[in-house]
Amino acid sequence: MLRSSIYQSSRLEATRALNKIVSSYLQTASYSTRSSSQRKLHNISNDSVSSSNPAMDFPCLDKLQAKTDLLSSNNKTIPSIKSEIDTNQGPEPVYSRVQSGFQKYQSKDPLFLDYGGFLPKFEIAYEQWGELNSDKSNAILLHTGLSASSHAKSQPDNTKPGWWENFIGPDLPLDTNKYFIVCTNVIGGCYGSTGPSSIDPSDNKHYATRFPILSVNDMVRAQERLMREQFGVEKLYASVGSSMGGMQSLAYAQEFPDSVEKIISISGCARSHPYSIAMRHAQRQVLMSDPNWKRGFYYDSIPPHVGMKLSREIATVTYRSGPEWEIRFGRERANPDVKPGLCPDFLVETYLDHQGNKFSLEYDPNSLLYISKAMDLFDLGKANRNAAEKKRLEFQKAFEDESNLEITSSGPACSTSSVPDENYKVKPRTKTITWEESEKDLLDGLSNFSNKEVLVIGVKSDILFPHWQQLEIANKLKEGNQKVFGGDGSNIKHVELGEDISMFGHDTFLLDVENIGGPVKKFLN
Amino acid sequence: MLRSSIYQSSRLEATRALNKIVSSYLQTASYSTRSSSQRKLHNISNDSVSSSNPAMDFPCLDKLQAKTDLLSSNNKTIPSIKSEIDTNQGPEPVYSRVQSGFQKYQSKDPLFLDYGGFLPKFEIAYEQWGELNSDKSNAILLHTGLSASSHAKSQPDNTKPGWWENFIGPDLPLDTNKYFIVCTNVIGGCYGSTGPSSIDPSDNKHYATRFPILSVNDMVRAQERLMREQFGVEKLYASVGSSMGGMQSLAYAQEFPDSVEKIISISGCARSHPYSIAMRHAQRQVLMSDPNWKRGFYYDSIPPHVGMKLSREIATVTYRSGPEWEIRFGRERANPDVKPGLCPDFLVETYLDHQGNKFSLEYDPNSLLYISKAMDLFDLGKANRNAAEKKRLEFQKAFEDESNLEITSSGPACSTSSVPDENYKVKPRTKTITWEESEKDLLDGLSNFSNKEVLVIGVKSDILFPHWQQLEIANKLKEGNQKVFGGDGSNIKHVELGEDISMFGHDTFLLDVENIGGPVKKFLN
Repeated sequence: MLRSSIYQSSRLEATRALNKIVSSYLQTASYSTRSSSQRKLHNISNDSVSSSNPAMDFPCLDKLQAKTDLLSSNNKTIPSIKSEIDTNQGPEPVYSRVQSGFQKYQSKDPLFLDYGGFLPKFEIAYEQWGELNSDKSNAILLHTGLSASSHAKSQPDNTKPGWWENFIGPDLPLDTNKYFIVCTNVIGGCYGSTGPSSIDPSDNKHYATRFPILSVNDMVRAQERLMREQFGVEKLYASVGSSMGGMQSLAYAQEFPDSVEKIISISGCARSHPYSIAMRHAQRQVLMSDPNWKRGFYYDSIPPHVGMKLSREIATVTYRSGPEWEIRFGRERANPDVKPGLCPDFLVETYLDHQGNKFSLEYDPNSLLYISKAMDLFDLGKANRNAAEKKRLEFQKAFEDESNLEITSSGPACSTSSVPDENYKVKPRTKTITWEESEKDLLDGLSNFSNKEVLVIGVKSDILFPHWQQLEIANKLKEGNQKVFGGDGSNIKHVELGEDISMFGHDTFLLDVENIGGPVKKFLN
Repeated sequence: MLRSSIYQSSRLEATRALNKIVSSYLQTASYSTRSSSQRKLHNISNDSVSSSNPAMDFPCLDKLQAKTDLLSSNNKTIPSIKSEIDTNQGPEPVYSRVQSGFQKYQSKDPLFLDYGGFLPKFEIAYEQWGELNSDKSNAILLHTGLSASSHAKSQPDNTKPGWWENFIGPDLPLDTNKYFIVCTNVIGGCYGSTGPSSIDPSDNKHYATRFPILSVNDMVRAQERLMREQFGVEKLYASVGSSMGGMQSLAYAQEFPDSVEKIISISGCARSHPYSIAMRHAQRQVLMSDPNWKRGFYYDSIPPHVGMKLSREIATVTYRSGPEWEIRFGRERANPDVKPGLCPDFLVETYLDHQGNKFSLEYDPNSLLYISKAMDLFDLGKANRNAAEKKRLEFQKAFEDESNLEITSSGPACSTSSVPDENYKVKPRTKTITWEESEKDLLDGLSNFSNKEVLVIGVKSDILFPHWQQLEIANKLKEGNQKVFGGDGSNIKHVELGEDISMFGHDTFLLDVENIGGPVKKFLN
């Protein structure tokens, strides 16, 4: 069970404490000795005279090994770590202890899911800013990116800056003088909402990879229940989000077109494209290959911090890169006076190493896998949504009939052996769907909310959710408004930030209060 | 020592044989039992009734584990693998046995390197096509991409198709009726040339990570020696290459401006940019985190095939992706009838999985690390080249003086501990080099061969060596020709293949005989 509200230390502080200990550990003589014996184990000659060139050092691997040792519950030789970062006497990752100050909504009813599983009950962690007005017409639901918590903005129960600190407040883009703003941790997350690290009520063990596959639409269906049951909000003033939050923002409107007035999608998309799937695939496979991942059942042992670090490094390339890096890092090496090696060396490498290390204990690895997968599966096209709804309702009916559920659970629909045989020829596409059919499918999928006021913001330097995906959303909605509602499409606004305005790629939505926040404020008012 | 010439089986056949064995192994009952006991080890309940949803399967991890078991020299329970893929009684990777039919040039003189190390002696594997004319004026040196061998084209000693099979031959772009074409395996590689898997003559053990850091310029300095000493070629008719071969092609001209007539660089660059460094960094760190990598000393044990597979998957994203994948894979799942899982699922994922698996034993992991690093370090700017030359000559002088070498080897120039402290703030750039200074530096670096005939080809859909890097080469050379040689820059040709012509990204140079080969043929004649 998450113990978030008990511990008051921030995740930043806890991570810093761990890093400090790792550093000092690495500086002790005992570790050098150990390193030397490791070298012998690896058959490395310490006698550089015997080889033509000296053996290479691997300080980056030494650090990872030291961190593993420190996280090992069996390691009794480093007493400091227990008292300094773990007040709970166990080798528990940082993320489960560091978020605090949120409220929890509990749903006792099951949540049925798009891909056939269900949650018997669930919790959603949320925070709120501003006041709900008397007719409950001023609520904004703010959706998060992949790994963010509900803490978008500081508030009395958690005064630390939130991830959209400068976007929320009096007279700011999400104006707390006017609006009642709610932000949640998504289902599948690890910052207070039900996710793979939560306890399965069926056997009181962690769900781990017995957690069901989620979709982005599943997430918003859980959020809609929160808004209705907790706050009595039948209709949102606005659904707002960036990145995966942009996906959710559109999905909310598609699921509940009568329950939302305005929609903002920033650097999101209407369906995932193969490059973004490929990059998330790489992150997941790298994480799952960490021996400490143990097929998801690591909650009582060393977390797969190496896999998490590497996964985050790959993700970071997709979040930034581009022209900003050329200016910020160029080809400069962190220390031009030392000989290049295979550990991080260029400035850009030390940046990635730092980002990966910082994140490696801040987030639950299984949450990363499930939410990343939900992003891959995101497709608001009509065919995909119809199929998902059909499967979900079938499962729900079987469950409610209390009949035949076991067969449903163990049948082919629950096999996940979809990896082709090792010798397979790469499969050609079986659905020979034409470009026109694909375009029509998306048009049909988005049409049911194309009469709403929608703002789509894209960033030209974004390589993960590229500018053409923003145009795709806007153009399809305009077309839907014209064809289905007989409108002129002027209800759909599209803003693109060129490279002259932002070089920060996908991360622009976190950074640029003026150019992201400006259009948001104007659109909402 | 590489035993390439002894074994006649192709690497493709050997890889296929291994894959076949892995597949059949996975189908045996004994493995299922083992898998079940593994599940128990990981605390996974086999009783799906006790959890809310069924546990997930991980066929992709089962396959990797089976491959590890098969490669283990201690595994006596799978006798077939020994006889079928390893005629040498040891768990040796495929790459070291499957390349054949090349010649070898041996240099008894040391090769001094840009970053301070040296090779006491070295070998270069090469193949040749066409006839060298009497005045030795028709030689073309063809450079390879990162992991390619000298086998660019079938020839009597190796009749299998080469990596540029359709570009070389009578009347083809590299016309064997007119030209004498030589292709080498680069220094640092594993297909016959001296690399980390070779034996260090100082102690008769594998170099492994005692191999010195290489630069692309080091590679071409070794090749120049081959051309001069083996063939008596003092001046190339042309230096031709794609990808890393494009880097080499330019580097050859810069190192030996009087020894080359024409230069072709296809999808290369004049200096690496941070995105490409970041993507190669991710590949290296993933590989180095495979426990079987053992800091490079894996030659007598299980090769880090999991790290190699993951590394290749990341690389594959940079080689293709973009518009081709949208059409080829879209959002289609490999098997839409089974429930999505965390193993490869979408078509694009199964493609990456397949590419990674195929490559995982075909290439030496240490060669990948060293050559990938050399690409990161590539920068033909004047400042970088001057610094490298200074360091190399200092080391060479110290070596030739037979004085003080040990101090040079163990001094700060040989430390590789450049990874910053775990707690570091990301370092700001120390060299506050302006954009103008950086441009000037590259101009100065390229100027010494800007009087040559140069053809630069770029591909708009390439994300690894993007089109602007091709323009950068061409524009700098034109400017150099005008400023230094008083020419009009018309000796510099630039061709860009738009997305209407090629959607194959970086890999276009391997595929498009018409649009890559066409301009090459025209330029050479």
